[in-house]
Amino acid sequence: MAARFPTAVYDQRLLRAAALAANAGVAALIVTPGPDLAYLIGSDAQTFERLTALVIPAAGPPRLVVPRLEVATFADSAAGELGVDVSPWVDGEDPYALALADLPSNPTVAVSDSMSAGHLVPLMNATGTAPQLATSVLRDLRMIKDDDEIAALRRAGTAIDRVHARMAEWLRPGRTEAAVAADIADALVAEGHTSAAFVIVGSGPNGADPHHEHSERVITDDDIVVIDIGGPVDPGYNSDCTRTYCFTEPSPEVTRAYAQLKAAQEAAIAAARPGVTAESVDAAARDRLAAAGLADRFIHRTGHGIGLSVHEEPYIVAGNSLVLCPGMAFSIEPGIYFDGDWGARIEDIVIVTDDGCESLNRQSHALTRLPAS
Amino acid sequence: MAARFPTAVYDQRLLRAAALAANAGVAALIVTPGPDLAYLIGSDAQTFERLTALVIPAAGPPRLVVPRLEVATFADSAAGELGVDVSPWVDGEDPYALALADLPSNPTVAVSDSMSAGHLVPLMNATGTAPQLATSVLRDLRMIKDDDEIAALRRAGTAIDRVHARMAEWLRPGRTEAAVAADIADALVAEGHTSAAFVIVGSGPNGADPHHEHSERVITDDDIVVIDIGGPVDPGYNSDCTRTYCFTEPSPEVTRAYAQLKAAQEAAIAAARPGVTAESVDAAARDRLAAAGLADRFIHRTGHGIGLSVHEEPYIVAGNSLVLCPGMAFSIEPGIYFDGDWGARIEDIVIVTDDGCESLNRQSHALTRLPAS
Repeated sequence: MAARFPTAVYDQRLLRAAALAANAGVAALIVTPGPDLAYLIGSDAQTFERLTALVIPAAGPPRLVVPRLEVATFADSAAGELGVDVSPWVDGEDPYALALADLPSNPTVAVSDSMSAGHLVPLMNATGTAPQLATSVLRDLRMIKDDDEIAALRRAGTAIDRVHARMAEWLRPGRTEAAVAADIADALVAEGHTSAAFVIVGSGPNGADPHHEHSERVITDDDIVVIDIGGPVDPGYNSDCTRTYCFTEPSPEVTRAYAQLKAAQEAAIAAARPGVTAESVDAAARDRLAAAGLADRFIHRTGHGIGLSVHEEPYIVAGNSLVLCPGMAFSIEPGIYFDGDWGARIEDIVIVTDDGCESLNRQSHALTRLPAS
Repeated sequence: MAARFPTAVYDQRLLRAAALAANAGVAALIVTPGPDLAYLIGSDAQTFERLTALVIPAAGPPRLVVPRLEVATFADSAAGELGVDVSPWVDGEDPYALALADLPSNPTVAVSDSMSAGHLVPLMNATGTAPQLATSVLRDLRMIKDDDEIAALRRAGTAIDRVHARMAEWLRPGRTEAAVAADIADALVAEGHTSAAFVIVGSGPNGADPHHEHSERVITDDDIVVIDIGGPVDPGYNSDCTRTYCFTEPSPEVTRAYAQLKAAQEAAIAAARPGVTAESVDAAARDRLAAAGLADRFIHRTGHGIGLSVHEEPYIVAGNSLVLCPGMAFSIEPGIYFDGDWGARIEDIVIVTDDGCESLNRQSHALTRLPAS
């Protein structure tokens, strides 16, 4: 990892994680490489077929089980300065038994979401118990961002705003989506991201598929183009921002529908504040579009949490009665999709404040017109 | 996926997978995006927090459970031509119940290694049973490569050989490991890989860490340099080849130790044939190094299977009594590591033939001397 927070940050996080494990009645959290490990000790270790896991007992010091070959990958993490005990293992030894060594027999454990079945199934065979998800145990800790995390998300927000501000440099009729996407990916890094995590260039009918990435389609003067882009900034916090562009005067139908989308997105932002449920924010956007006869055009949830993962809790979706509180960070991104024809989406990342929310993305919400060919 | 095999290949694989599931006594295989899904239907779909899974019942037709938003990502796969039934779902529905819909109650299922705990834990809660790993069910199918797969691995082998053949263009004293690695990554793609999956440039003392990637260290005339590189070629089969380089006459100690390493690697290649165990191939290399007093310098297994994953079964490691048979593909890569000083490794991919093995990598096994500064 090119950068991490000061070691004291991770010290506090580990203490809180152990306390949450105790409160949840699990003997330990077992965390494999991924966002939870980045959160807890500032490590960007990768996961392989050999088990690497941070074991955080409800009582007792944390311990890092790691293949001897991969011990060096933790040199940049906070594990060393924190004095985390390292248990190296070599091929032929049983790392699952090693991970459980200091725990009671048949312990209930909570595992990170990103743990693969290839590790979880043998771990379960060793515990003899059904695991829980660490996500539920660490939920409050991960969902509620502290000041350092909020500062990182703000940096990510301004970085992606700079990329959208330069969009006319690359997004032009006559170019392919793929060529535009390659330039945008370079710009993501040039403007401060450590990599381009995703680049969606959905032109014309491709804009009607929310998960379209990019293609060899040549963009035309009459297209509406959805640009949904993001990536991490040090130490790993992500941007994610969508704007929709055109090159000529849009038709009255497009103009009318886009105005409704913009009103829906802004209604959801106005609804996001402490004390309301996640689903109520979804409903704010959805009801606004439904009132305009566009209910069937909005085919996904309103948003997702963001931080060390691009998608994490809280999900802004019908059925999620989670109550929002200050420090939660998530996207607000309603879209409208006209199959085979065009689509549009507007996405900002917001952080819940004491009395509302702060949008981290400041580029205009308008259907932005760029020069035609 | 830029390319896949003809649809009939996947038709046969699905039929065999269902039969293997029946033989293993599981009600269904449940396969999330990853190498198993690429193997079974030629899909390079990615995994997200929304469940995407191919359900292959022991009896009955396979079915694809996929978020409605992501249905389009299967357009290039064989699923359409095979007539695989698609069960789309939308936010708010329960995809785990949907995956289990046609199965008996409390079914025993086998899940792909790559399934995340975030999906496996709710799936287990829905089945009420402990899952198995599809790896064990699909083991023979995935381990034994057919002619098309072998042809793809040969293409990968010649592609990486071309990169090693050009090494003098980039690997020069005075440059940083990172600069050399960037050039090699470009060359991997230029020589036919779809991406650079990994690039290890371990110079001098960094060569003594088998999992070192690359650093800002400036390479010097006296360094021994380990170059371990690879990536996928269409349709997703990987290369993986290590050679060790120097720039000046190596010391007598290095020359002697390297000669032992070369003999050990060649002994393991000579040992690999149908009917012998995986561990016997490991022992062939290990015993040779031990006889030369270098047992403590060889700190990892001799090899790993390769195909759609860079690391898969069969593992060439002590304790693995698996009997080799024609069509298995794996690396043979002993190494010697002198902590803080230097290291060396020689790695070829081999395919077991009717009476021995075929090496897919043809560049010299020598400690290759490149021009000094």
